[in-house]
Amino acid sequence: MKKIGIADTMFAMADMGKLAEKTIKESTFPVKIERYTVPGVKDLPVACKKLFEERNCDIVIALGMPGKMPIDKQCAHEASQGIIQAQLMTNKHIIEVFVHEDEAQNDKKLAEIMKNRTIKHTINALHLLFRPEELRKKAGSGERQGKENAKALEL
Amino acid sequence: MKKIGIADTMFAMADMGKLAEKTIKESTFPVKIERYTVPGVKDLPVACKKLFEERNCDIVIALGMPGKMPIDKQCAHEASQGIIQAQLMTNKHIIEVFVHEDEAQNDKKLAEIMKNRTIKHTINALHLLFRPEELRKKAGSGERQGKENAKALEL
Amino acid sequence: MKKIGIADTMFAMADMGKLAEKTIKESTFPVKIERYTVPGVKDLPVACKKLFEERNCDIVIALGMPGKMPIDKQCAHEASQGIIQAQLMTNKHIIEVFVHEDEAQNDKKLAEIMKNRTIKHTINALHLLFRPEELRKKAGSGERQGKENAKALEL
Amino acid sequence: MKKIGIADTMFAMADMGKLAEKTIKESTFPVKIERYTVPGVKDLPVACKKLFEERNCDIVIALGMPGKMPIDKQCAHEASQGIIQAQLMTNKHIIEVFVHEDEAQNDKKLAEIMKNRTIKHTINALHLLFRPEELRKKAGSGERQGKENAKALEL
Amino acid sequence: MKKIGIADTMFAMADMGKLAEKTIKESTFPVKIERYTVPGVKDLPVACKKLFEERNCDIVIALGMPGKMPIDKQCAHEASQGIIQAQLMTNKHIIEVFVHEDEAQNDKKLAEIMKNRTIKHTINALHLLFRPEELRKKAGSGERQGKENAKALEL
Repeated sequence: MKKIGIADTMFAMADMGKLAEKTIKESTFPVKIERYTVPGVKDLPVACKKLFEERNCDIVIALGMPGKMPIDKQCAHEASQGIIQAQLMTNKHIIEVFVHEDEAQNDKKLAEIMKNRTIKHTINALHLLFRPEELRKKAGSGERQGKENAKALEL
Repeated sequence: MKKIGIADTMFAMADMGKLAEKTIKESTFPVKIERYTVPGVKDLPVACKKLFEERNCDIVIALGMPGKMPIDKQCAHEASQGIIQAQLMTNKHIIEVFVHEDEAQNDKKLAEIMKNRTIKHTINALHLLFRPEELRKKAGSGERQGKENAKALEL
Repeated sequence: MKKIGIADTMFAMADMGKLAEKTIKESTFPVKIERYTVPGVKDLPVACKKLFEERNCDIVIALGMPGKMPIDKQCAHEASQGIIQAQLMTNKHIIEVFVHEDEAQNDKKLAEIMKNRTIKHTINALHLLFRPEELRKKAGSGERQGKENAKALEL
Repeated sequence: MKKIGIADTMFAMADMGKLAEKTIKESTFPVKIERYTVPGVKDLPVACKKLFEERNCDIVIALGMPGKMPIDKQCAHEASQGIIQAQLMTNKHIIEVFVHEDEAQNDKKLAEIMKNRTIKHTINALHLLFRPEELRKKAGSGERQGKENAKALEL
Repeated sequence: MKKIGIADTMFAMADMGKLAEKTIKESTFPVKIERYTVPGVKDLPVACKKLFEERNCDIVIALGMPGKMPIDKQCAHEASQGIIQAQLMTNKHIIEVFVHEDEAQNDKKLAEIMKNRTIKHTINALHLLFRPEELRKKAGSGERQGKENAKALEL
């Protein structure tokens, strides 16, 4: 049976990991879940790599919520670079789900983005693992997570 | 027979991958195509590496369309760094074809850039694979993709 | 017996390493301590890697205090990138505890941040090593080190 | 016989590669030349690595001309990072010769910089390969390529 | 006998390498010196790695002097990233001694910084190699190279 890892942080202002778990369990895909919580986003890259190499995950969802200060933006950048490196070292996908604290102007809208992005990207991860043709169908369609899709242009 | 990979995203606002496929098929080069669609540009580096190492591609075209917000620019930067790393780890070329959403002031011009850049870089990829002397002939000629060529200077 | 590394710098304006040592010793966890002092934060990545590979540490706490000038910020960024790389190369956690010299407006508050962040992150490191479920319980709880926790949102 | 690689781009506005070849041929050093032309600067890192590992070069000169837009500056940065990585992976020198399109205020001065920098760095590459003592003699001398040397200070 | 590498550049406006050599020779530590001069700071990372792997150095001092233009700052950033990578690949320390051309307002003060920083960091390198306890004693003491030490705070 395939295994999906969920790496998340204490720093985030909502339990996106629980929502990702729920989304996976409600899906019809036969998959085990490994959860791994770390302090903040900069701890995610090695957590993801350990999920692949020590707990045999086939794909990982990395959930984080960078703060609004310049130093937080820099941390997110470093985390993202590390997450890309971890993928290149393992030949496995890590679906990064970062919601920036300043993406919305109030808590309600922020929670909406967190929900929408977490659910949609969890499904993306499941599709990458079980049904890559679902992604192929939406190639170049302006698909967005956390907000409305962009319009699609004809070439 | 040589194999060319096309890695593209759901995020992009037009199906550049389809156009790259069409360009390859209309060329006279004997080559198989592998297509791999991921959510966004940050998922491209590992997709490219998997196209080389799991699907035996000889070269990959990585198509993406970064958004216009600062965070999108940062994502594109991280993706590009990962694409360069993937090349160094495999000793194979990845031709990056990124069109930034804010490169043109209207949709028509944006589509023009996407078409021009995708077609020209697809041909560059085919030339790197089959006829490197075609690139050599244009060394230092101010060649551009997606817009008019620059003038060439004499040294 | 598990071993915890403490990598710190001469550059920092207070002996955070000593406080980390004290915090570990006062905890109930059976663990040996290795201390490694380097000139500045850019020397930390390789010091951490040596703590893992030459002194058999299981986890490392990297303590640093970047200065307030732009060049200091850049050094901190480079150090953080290196610390993430070191983790990916060893599959082990490095808990980075950086306090920026300009985070507080006077020395007293700066010392408060240094104390709070060092103690809390030292405990995080111990929990990652011995009781990962403690981190799991606080997933998405807005946990902060060095300042008050953020509020937590429901999804 | 030693082999020197020349990696250059179609994007550049003048054929710096030809000038590097000419400079090598006019020198008295016994060396073979391998030339490798790619679309743009971001394709240079892997081209350099292939020159070392697939064509047995002992040193490579990487010639490029980043454009004047912010995105071009970012591409140059990514290319330079990749060129440094390629060197670390091969233990061989790549002499990067980048001329930025906005370094001069007219075409004539731009061509002057391209000529001066290409010739001087080609000689640096030859010296690194055959006469490292020539570089040693100029240590800390304020040597510049593409413009006048800086003054030298006494310590 | 231990071996210390000195990697320096032609670009720098003063011969910091000579001063580092002098400082080492005047010390009481039994150590051989290898000197390696390259064109500029971006050539330092691979020079350092070669000093470790081809000339058996145990530690390296990397001396450079980035210019004052934005592009120079970016070069210094890339060089520093490469120097950190080189350390992680070799598990050896490289003590980076960079003096920025715009750190002082006149040549005399600039030379003072170069002297002070070079001498102090050369001694740091010797201590890391022979007497790491000397660094340990100064942990968190606000130690600076090239300017006055910062005050130290109590925690």
